[in-house]
Amino acid sequence: MISLTRRQIEALLEYDHAAGLIEDAYRASSLGKVNLPPVGHIVFPDHDGDCHIKYGHVEGDEVFVIKVATGFYGNAARGLPSGNGISLVLSAHTGAVKAVLHDEMCMTDFRTAIGGAIATRLLCRPDAERVTIVGSGVQAYKQAEAHARLMPDRRLEFLVWGRATEKAAAVVKELAASGLWAEVTEDLEDACRNADVVITTTASTAPVIQHGWVQPGTHITAIGADAPGKQELDTQLVAEADLLIVDLGSQCLDHGEVATAARAGLVGPDRLAELGEVLDQRKPGRTAADQITIADLTGIAAQDIAIARMVVSAFERLEEAK
Amino acid sequence: MISLTRRQIEALLEYDHAAGLIEDAYRASSLGKVNLPPVGHIVFPDHDGDCHIKYGHVEGDEVFVIKVATGFYGNAARGLPSGNGISLVLSAHTGAVKAVLHDEMCMTDFRTAIGGAIATRLLCRPDAERVTIVGSGVQAYKQAEAHARLMPDRRLEFLVWGRATEKAAAVVKELAASGLWAEVTEDLEDACRNADVVITTTASTAPVIQHGWVQPGTHITAIGADAPGKQELDTQLVAEADLLIVDLGSQCLDHGEVATAARAGLVGPDRLAELGEVLDQRKPGRTAADQITIADLTGIAAQDIAIARMVVSAFERLEEAK
Repeated sequence: MISLTRRQIEALLEYDHAAGLIEDAYRASSLGKVNLPPVGHIVFPDHDGDCHIKYGHVEGDEVFVIKVATGFYGNAARGLPSGNGISLVLSAHTGAVKAVLHDEMCMTDFRTAIGGAIATRLLCRPDAERVTIVGSGVQAYKQAEAHARLMPDRRLEFLVWGRATEKAAAVVKELAASGLWAEVTEDLEDACRNADVVITTTASTAPVIQHGWVQPGTHITAIGADAPGKQELDTQLVAEADLLIVDLGSQCLDHGEVATAARAGLVGPDRLAELGEVLDQRKPGRTAADQITIADLTGIAAQDIAIARMVVSAFERLEEAK
Repeated sequence: MISLTRRQIEALLEYDHAAGLIEDAYRASSLGKVNLPPVGHIVFPDHDGDCHIKYGHVEGDEVFVIKVATGFYGNAARGLPSGNGISLVLSAHTGAVKAVLHDEMCMTDFRTAIGGAIATRLLCRPDAERVTIVGSGVQAYKQAEAHARLMPDRRLEFLVWGRATEKAAAVVKELAASGLWAEVTEDLEDACRNADVVITTTASTAPVIQHGWVQPGTHITAIGADAPGKQELDTQLVAEADLLIVDLGSQCLDHGEVATAARAGLVGPDRLAELGEVLDQRKPGRTAADQITIADLTGIAAQDIAIARMVVSAFERLEEAK
């Protein structure tokens, strides 16, 4: 039985390898090859906390994965992270527990960042280089890093905007330390008007990006709206986009950016394509340089499965090499 | 973070202490003080396996528990146990993972046995000593052991019946090695007619105990029927019992012994009392020596929570004492 700490797991996370596996996960998901029972959920109202249990199995895989993620929003006041997590990898042949991954959310952060970068790489203009990052949390940094790693042939320039400018400055400092070109912006409208790519990473419940700000040819990857009630993009912007790509149709119609437009009757399931369908070329991606494309990502268990499997395989290879 | 192996956990399981905690768990459950979301379930038809995820929180507890249990029924042919399991104990204040208990089902076996013994102790005649154990699996031995431990003032005599007599003989040998009085019986009808207590532990899907076999004054603890389609007791026996006690009403009406009688229209929810209600004296238990009483136990997550908490507390006390 394998048991790995966050530090051990972080040392095993590898961008290019993970990107391939996560693309496969999107493909498998959109082909209906992932058995995903309903997500488990329990709330702790006295401590402003909750716990989600996501689990599933990809057809033919030797293992299945159970991911437990908690969010306790009073933790910050105690100097503790809000999010926490652990993943279990079990044999799909015998039920034996193969690995316990004490990732404390780092695998979720990693797969979320890679998902965003896969979507952008697939859907942005071939010459896109100016990237506006909206938000200043963990994903602001992680998305920029993943985008740079997955598109090494481009000279990406990041503008980072946050409600708290000092937090955006901290993200920029961290990106610069990683050798990336990054600057803070305090003018979000201007940063959107001049962007080739906009990546939204906030926990906002009201539109942050307005309709008129986004110019033809822009690609938006929206990852903040991962629960009912969250919204980062103006409804009209979503409704009028040339291309709406989602990670999982049913989920995005329930609680993604697309959900608000759908409830307003402006977007139907027929307007959506899944990322896996575009990766598989079963549905078209961007077909013209002046299109506005939006990828609305809510996060899917197939990503979690892919990352957990990658970590376990990488660890096993290291052990064998010893 | 605490991580314990099966061997470490087994050394921490203590009957009397656990019995008190599990009685409290039944009380809390019947008072509606346990938050129990729907059980998660995923199946692996290609490998005749499945996985259940039970989780919940007892009002006011500092921790909550997630129990993962797998059953892969082709394992026996490979010389592996069918059942496997792992429990996670997390803080209900911060979401942090407090303990990973690699119990491989031993905590489930233990709490199931104690639940049976609690029910029998509460509901059998004060002079009951002759116990017929129906079945020859893990629970046949465990139930006998728990009954002996929880009723040390009685000279219990166990008759063990199994479809395969050699398996029943193995259980008897194990019980004798533990200093208990036990014999094999090949005549189940006779063993039931002469029993003060009958404990059914089989995975049968058709009645094993017939109506006319059970004499006035007998108590039956039925623990085998823990899933839809399973049945050990004749429907008429259940319908005509003087007292029907369940661990969780809603669950037993769905897949306990009571479910078959309920579907036949012979038993309604008004006929049932929960074990916690009788322990709390909010509903009566046995009121006469000639009553036939039945405890129908399907297993509840509150038991799992109690055992996991006990193991973690016991480990912490040992560590502090070092």
